Amino acid sequence: MAILIKQASYVVRSADRVERDTDILIEGPRITAVGQILPAGMDVLQVIDGRGRAVIPGFVNAHTHLYQNFLKGLSDDIGLVAWCNATLYPLAYAIHQAHWGHDDESCGYHWATLSALEMIRGGVTCCVDMNMNMDSVFRGWQESGIRGVGAIALSDRWLPAPLCRDQEASRQDALRLARNWHAAHPRIETVLAPSTPFLCSKELLLWARNRAEEIGIGLQIHLAETRYEVEQVYQETGQTPVAYAHGLGLLKSGTTAVHCVHVTDAEIDLLAESGATVVHCPKSNLKLGSGIAPVAKMLRRGVPMALAADGAASNDLLDMFEETRMAALLHKGVGEDSTAITGRQAFRMATEGGARAAGIDAGTLDPGKLADLTIVNLDQPHLVPLHDIVNALVYCARASDVETTIIDGQLVMDRGEILTLDEEKVRHEAAHFGAEMFRQGVEMWRGLTRG
Amino acid sequence: MAILIKQASYVVRSADRVERDTDILIEGPRITAVGQILPAGMDVLQVIDGRGRAVIPGFVNAHTHLYQNFLKGLSDDIGLVAWCNATLYPLAYAIHQAHWGHDDESCGYHWATLSALEMIRGGVTCCVDMNMNMDSVFRGWQESGIRGVGAIALSDRWLPAPLCRDQEASRQDALRLARNWHAAHPRIETVLAPSTPFLCSKELLLWARNRAEEIGIGLQIHLAETRYEVEQVYQETGQTPVAYAHGLGLLKSGTTAVHCVHVTDAEIDLLAESGATVVHCPKSNLKLGSGIAPVAKMLRRGVPMALAADGAASNDLLDMFEETRMAALLHKGVGEDSTAITGRQAFRMATEGGARAAGIDAGTLDPGKLADLTIVNLDQPHLVPLHDIVNALVYCARASDVETTIIDGQLVMDRGEILTLDEEKVRHEAAHFGAEMFRQGVEMWRGLTRG
Repeated sequence: MAILIKQASYVVRSADRVERDTDILIEGPRITAVGQILPAGMDVLQVIDGRGRAVIPGFVNAHTHLYQNFLKGLSDDIGLVAWCNATLYPLAYAIHQAHWGHDDESCGYHWATLSALEMIRGGVTCCVDMNMNMDSVFRGWQESGIRGVGAIALSDRWLPAPLCRDQEASRQDALRLARNWHAAHPRIETVLAPSTPFLCSKELLLWARNRAEEIGIGLQIHLAETRYEVEQVYQETGQTPVAYAHGLGLLKSGTTAVHCVHVTDAEIDLLAESGATVVHCPKSNLKLGSGIAPVAKMLRRGVPMALAADGAASNDLLDMFEETRMAALLHKGVGEDSTAITGRQAFRMATEGGARAAGIDAGTLDPGKLADLTIVNLDQPHLVPLHDIVNALVYCARASDVETTIIDGQLVMDRGEILTLDEEKVRHEAAHFGAEMFRQGVEMWRGLTRG
Repeated sequence: MAILIKQASYVVRSADRVERDTDILIEGPRITAVGQILPAGMDVLQVIDGRGRAVIPGFVNAHTHLYQNFLKGLSDDIGLVAWCNATLYPLAYAIHQAHWGHDDESCGYHWATLSALEMIRGGVTCCVDMNMNMDSVFRGWQESGIRGVGAIALSDRWLPAPLCRDQEASRQDALRLARNWHAAHPRIETVLAPSTPFLCSKELLLWARNRAEEIGIGLQIHLAETRYEVEQVYQETGQTPVAYAHGLGLLKSGTTAVHCVHVTDAEIDLLAESGATVVHCPKSNLKLGSGIAPVAKMLRRGVPMALAADGAASNDLLDMFEETRMAALLHKGVGEDSTAITGRQAFRMATEGGARAAGIDAGTLDPGKLADLTIVNLDQPHLVPLHDIVNALVYCARASDVETTIIDGQLVMDRGEILTLDEEKVRHEAAHFGAEMFRQGVEMWRGLTRG
């Protein structure tokens, strides 16, 4: 059983290696050959015509909070605190309640399938989602065909009290999910996610580090997203968040440090030495007014970097073409230096960097890698003329140019048609369910916070 | 002869006024009614089903250099001077030669139709193009159905000598175009564009101001795009570019000042008092490393503002959804203030602000306005759930969501099908022609600059 893409105009093996007019062979979940391939004698089930098309590594969206899809447009352009009170906490509480009431089906499943639809359509083949209720999210991902890493979120302080209950149960749940799902199901992996030094006690941070090591999984943590967080952590610990996390042994290969907006040169050195991957979320950092991460500096210092959309409520898309383009543009403007970051660097962050962040053997189209890839239709007015395919993908291409998506060797979208989900049903149910859940959340929240 | 859009889920009359489940009637080039419309007795030629759709004002791309479409991807991520020498000057020279050799057909027509295609597909109904060879551009625009303002470019110094020849002929040509085309052809208008104080003598700036006044047309000028420009103008005149232009009487209602990246508070006051529209080009300013305009400050001070993509070589798209989103996001991040600019303000810049910049009676969907509008298909996973239509258009929607485009009351794109141009032919000819023209330009340029 194999998929053969014939005569692809471009096979973008990586940011730095492009082959013209060539074939690519997929057998089982992996790429087995790139070159002139004669299908004779092979059990080729599917041949895809690659003419006028570019085959590219699937993007990895290395940090999301997919449940926030339900919050899009509810309170834009307001401050973070007002936003938390008006939308985030009520919805989070409703989710929490639904989860602990074991009402799984009506919870994560809907946002998981909705966001998988958007990502598969936009050339994203893997995401890392920091979230609470994972069983139903995993079920949604499995059904959709996307690859996903569940970053099982833990916090034990500062959050409003109703969201801090059940801490021991949360920890046990996180361990159960990690043990039951990690590597036991194709396309699903897990990491532990002590959400941020600001929202986690030292004891919880160490617990997460030790448990992750025991189970053999990675860690994801928000670090230095806002000045406020930096100040709070400093007041309490005498250290900045990166230094504090480093001191506790949280930063290492296998850890993803999300944001790193407000970091000093010394902290960049710590990050570079630690082997942790920094996940840059440019659009989210802009929309929330958090600031602009010193990405050009981190790249120069050799920090491994990935890209992500973050939660849809601070973005409001899960569009890695836009994140890649934003990364490539933003840091040129901020530094007033058009050479500060290249299109190729941004592309590498979204592909190889993302695969490293997610801990998956993908990110390039080299034989032996997981077959997570997409096919971009180049017959678009905005892609004419096409002088440099990688830069055209970074500076010109759009999510809507993705025609076909293959994940784990499986055809998930074929020439614009989603093969795994009933698209209309997913959209309809998510629209209905999102509104209803939010309404319930606001009501419950009002009841709890009134007294 | 009329077009009736029935039961549109949303009619976004402006950033601040949205009507639900209503109709919109177009007769001749104008909108004549918004509300519950009974088509009985009317000579309705075309009824469009608006269910599941939003009808929105067409975007105005208020500053472009469309010929740069041919330069996309040729030298990304390099410095401005290197870029000018490697790509801009050779192509500009080839265009110049082609034009003065009266080889019109093979010149502006191709980039005009290619870019019109991209813009019509992306919901842009009008652009202001600063350019040299306008006859063939106008012909391309007329054929495509887009509305366009030719900003006829003039410079008389600092450019490499071969580009500065024929100054007197250029001026006469600019006057001929302004007199022959302005208001004499539907959908085509003109302004005079002394390109920048840096590239124009004082005499040329005053000549342009006086001729524009005589003919009764506007002006467009680049101002304060880079620190280098500000320093050069200051050294020579003792004034910053905005103050200098203001002193020469160039800034007034009817003038568009493009960029205004490096402006002081006092200059912002001058701009606000002058009535000129500032055209913000966020992506271009980022890609060229020019910097970030103080847009939040200009908005607070009441400066009329529009948005634009600028030349495709510094962008590399003509995508006003992306420019609007970038404007809404960027200034929140730079100012570390999530309330610095709202989605509605960005939307207004792209529509009403753009119409003001272009000097056209459009930009809202109020009865009496020109029928320049687009229909967005809301059945997209990235638009679910939809809580706020204007913010959804700003933060979530994409160029590819535009399904139908109406310009000057004419259906130009109908449910994804371009009615005015042979799309494949346009793409093919532009790809071929762009490459050939650039090859010739580089050869000619090498010959000229070698000695």
